[in-house]
Amino acid sequence: MTRHARTALGLDYGTSSVRAVIVAVDTGEELAASTWAYEHGTDGVILDDRDPNLARQHPADYLKGFIESVRGALAAARSIKGFDPSTICGIGVDTTGSTPIPVDKGGQPLGLRPEFQNEPAAMAWLWKDHTSHAQAAEITELAARQGRPYLAKCGGVYSSEWYWSKALRCEQTAPAIARAIHGWVELCDYIPAALTGDTRPEFISRSICAAGHKAMYHESWGGLPAEDFLESLQPGFSRFRRTYGPRAVPSNNRAGALCETMARATGLAAGIPIAVGALDAHMGAVGSHVGPGTLVKIIGTSTCDCMVAPLARPLPDIPGVCGIVPESIIPGMYGIEAGQSAVGDIFNWFVREMTGGKSDEHASLTAAAQRLRPGESGLVALDWHNGNRTVLVDPLLTGLIVGQTLHTTRAELYRALIEATAFGALKIIERIESFGVEIERVVNCGGIAEKNPLVMQIYADVCNRPMYIARSGQTCAVGSAIFASVVGGAHPDVQTAQHAMAGVRETIYRPIAANAEVYRELFGIYTRLHDAFGVKNASGLDLDRLMKDLIAIRTRARSA
Amino acid sequence: MTRHARTALGLDYGTSSVRAVIVAVDTGEELAASTWAYEHGTDGVILDDRDPNLARQHPADYLKGFIESVRGALAAARSIKGFDPSTICGIGVDTTGSTPIPVDKGGQPLGLRPEFQNEPAAMAWLWKDHTSHAQAAEITELAARQGRPYLAKCGGVYSSEWYWSKALRCEQTAPAIARAIHGWVELCDYIPAALTGDTRPEFISRSICAAGHKAMYHESWGGLPAEDFLESLQPGFSRFRRTYGPRAVPSNNRAGALCETMARATGLAAGIPIAVGALDAHMGAVGSHVGPGTLVKIIGTSTCDCMVAPLARPLPDIPGVCGIVPESIIPGMYGIEAGQSAVGDIFNWFVREMTGGKSDEHASLTAAAQRLRPGESGLVALDWHNGNRTVLVDPLLTGLIVGQTLHTTRAELYRALIEATAFGALKIIERIESFGVEIERVVNCGGIAEKNPLVMQIYADVCNRPMYIARSGQTCAVGSAIFASVVGGAHPDVQTAQHAMAGVRETIYRPIAANAEVYRELFGIYTRLHDAFGVKNASGLDLDRLMKDLIAIRTRARSA
Repeated sequence: MTRHARTALGLDYGTSSVRAVIVAVDTGEELAASTWAYEHGTDGVILDDRDPNLARQHPADYLKGFIESVRGALAAARSIKGFDPSTICGIGVDTTGSTPIPVDKGGQPLGLRPEFQNEPAAMAWLWKDHTSHAQAAEITELAARQGRPYLAKCGGVYSSEWYWSKALRCEQTAPAIARAIHGWVELCDYIPAALTGDTRPEFISRSICAAGHKAMYHESWGGLPAEDFLESLQPGFSRFRRTYGPRAVPSNNRAGALCETMARATGLAAGIPIAVGALDAHMGAVGSHVGPGTLVKIIGTSTCDCMVAPLARPLPDIPGVCGIVPESIIPGMYGIEAGQSAVGDIFNWFVREMTGGKSDEHASLTAAAQRLRPGESGLVALDWHNGNRTVLVDPLLTGLIVGQTLHTTRAELYRALIEATAFGALKIIERIESFGVEIERVVNCGGIAEKNPLVMQIYADVCNRPMYIARSGQTCAVGSAIFASVVGGAHPDVQTAQHAMAGVRETIYRPIAANAEVYRELFGIYTRLHDAFGVKNASGLDLDRLMKDLIAIRTRARSA
Repeated sequence: MTRHARTALGLDYGTSSVRAVIVAVDTGEELAASTWAYEHGTDGVILDDRDPNLARQHPADYLKGFIESVRGALAAARSIKGFDPSTICGIGVDTTGSTPIPVDKGGQPLGLRPEFQNEPAAMAWLWKDHTSHAQAAEITELAARQGRPYLAKCGGVYSSEWYWSKALRCEQTAPAIARAIHGWVELCDYIPAALTGDTRPEFISRSICAAGHKAMYHESWGGLPAEDFLESLQPGFSRFRRTYGPRAVPSNNRAGALCETMARATGLAAGIPIAVGALDAHMGAVGSHVGPGTLVKIIGTSTCDCMVAPLARPLPDIPGVCGIVPESIIPGMYGIEAGQSAVGDIFNWFVREMTGGKSDEHASLTAAAQRLRPGESGLVALDWHNGNRTVLVDPLLTGLIVGQTLHTTRAELYRALIEATAFGALKIIERIESFGVEIERVVNCGGIAEKNPLVMQIYADVCNRPMYIARSGQTCAVGSAIFASVVGGAHPDVQTAQHAMAGVRETIYRPIAANAEVYRELFGIYTRLHDAFGVKNASGLDLDRLMKDLIAIRTRARSA
């Protein structure tokens, strides 16, 4: 086997399906891929008619998903002349998160035990499960009251989507199940462990990415939050700290080797090195060739904006930036994570509500919006339809649009919403740069980046910088494969692997000077609205309270 | 002929047609009506493909319209057992305005002369003609610069829709026609004069309503603006002051008696007294039983809000209220006119843009909006899609909506726009009341008032007062008939005639306490937005300039 023939296997666990991709380690060429849709729930998600906040997944889907997707990818690869499965030098895994799974002492997910098979609390608590908002508030409040530093690295507010909120809610509301729980394991930690054949929580290699961004893990305060903090949340709660294992590490570390059982089930060779897992967006950044000076925007229903900066140079906390975690994206670098809480979701909402969701109208709306010149609609919007994650870190903000006349068209409104998300993107860029992290290049990935030239050109014009598009349409899986290639010995480090396996497309969206000039003015308008409605005391009329007052009225009206 | 059998004839000249209504003076019963559509232009309006601001009417339509509509009404009345045309004791006329007509020395409209028959400048300049915006600005600027008091009674800004703007534009841009013009006659003054057979401008009884609200006429400065003011606008311009006649009067004055020619053409008796004309909205207020303490809202594409207050008690200028003119609505009373620059137009815009104008979706949208509870959408809008007439008097304001989420529905947006117009209505009520004019009753008329219970209930709940609906569906024509009955001697004064002939329907929209409570809070939100974006220096962020800045950007983008 020549070095040139080596391949790596990347697994990407999404919300509805898992995808396996076999990637050539020299070129990044995606030789074969296969997707397997989860069998349980609605599109893979277990819902509850009585509680729209609930979203769980059945753990049985995960291992079956590994076996089926890998078998599918191997079958597809075999049709390629000369492909040899023994070229696979390593396996990498990324998953959604925070998606913690309660497991028993033997490491078995409780949802796989017959007595709990119909208990939602025993399943994996999917990233978008929002049942734990009260617990999140409790954690935020306790950390603030006790003067704990735990929230400094995650924007100051602990989320209902995250690890400890979910564990605490289970403890408080499902005591019978809670008694059976020995530990909570993030999905991105569970999969690599399961591939090694040992999922006992104490022995699992934990991902620094998930730990740092979701579980308040930081070396500076000794890893996870202190036992007494966890105990004051709930007596007995600190046991999950003791079963967590000693240390969280980046994905250039091995979680172990593929066990015989999994090898036999898939047709892979036993003993293949398995990389420690990570969250999907961060792997997507790696697969988009993130590095110092490069911001990667993963643009989907929302965005995740990732950067790295060398550990050698101290990095201040950046107010409003969700997470700064050492080595969470690339070893030896700070991982910086920001994001917009709704982007594609806003476009989809508008099309759904304004056209009745007719897809041909979506196309004609886009075509009409494309024909408009910047500024000619006289509209500016705030992109806060799902709150604001960065830089205001405030879920209780809402959308706003100003400038409507009796001549305003639907296409103008649509374009104004696209522009609003671009202004939101520029706010993040400005905030990061203002704290000394220079952004030389912006690489976009995700469906919108690949398929919507209108959005990408507006982003280029608004941000007044070129917008690059990641080469792969599967950057998360490619990111996993990059770490697989490193643990498999094909590359000495992540940067070398990225250089070989990741890149950008030839199509680059470059700013048009005349458009950029108009958008500079419109961004000034956006900023005045942003500060008036989003920043305390910026206006003399308590406008920063106005959206919250409306939400309070709405809440009372709905419960009346 | 008994007193009980007497009738009055009301003529209502609209934008596309004229309507004649025969009304019983004792009861207000509408015995017969007939409408005649103008023959010239598009739906009665002469347009210019090259200039969307141009809107003219052919004067030939006016007298033919009188003859045809009256003949039609008389024919319809004859089918009523015992109807006798000689019971008609008087004729009253209301028209659109300001719709000035250029006439020659003999009083003939220039558009009727063969040499000018194809000249738009020789036609009637319809109320919604906006070609004269530069002249309006010139007049406003000159009045301010010279410290003239002329704009104090019309909100401080002279409009492109009004009398002098149009006359000045004709003078500046159509000199050949201007040389032939001996005088400018408002349509509501022209029709009564034409019915008497003498339309020489010097001898026409001018309506105080049109003169005061549109031609800067006020007794306190000696009637029309001074000669030297008009001369400094344009040399020679003051001739139109000299041909205006001595005095403007309310409609309880006679313009004269029906001439033989018109009598023969219609089948009416010669010599019937004719009332001085007035503008349609003001006649609509009279026909809706306006009186001290009653606000009449004529709700259509925009609104006109009319009140009266006794002359005996001095009335201060009310900031932001478009016009306060003695006797413009009812003799012996101040006429107070306010208005919202878009109401039905906003609803029509939304339905057109958001549903593609499908009328069944309009109905389903209304039904869905009806099912919503106040406050539950979390939305508040500003109703400034066509600027704000009262109380901000600022055409350079635009619409705004705040509170959108990914769950916001089209029906919620629609209802928020209806609520916004209701908040705008309440702002007017509050402003008028805050200057000591108490409003005991609100009577609504016009298509929306008659046909849209959702809008009327929201208005009742927002304003927290009952909303009455005028009895007649033709309140303008009924108002004209009321003045006809007074000049015809059937009633001693307008109030007595109104008591007999005008009234409200049994259906009254009463406020629902729980809704009113929620709307009180939402009105607080509306007020914060209103003040932030509409009032100078209310916010610390120059938000009052923001909509204007956007319009400036829009203007540059469109001309680029």
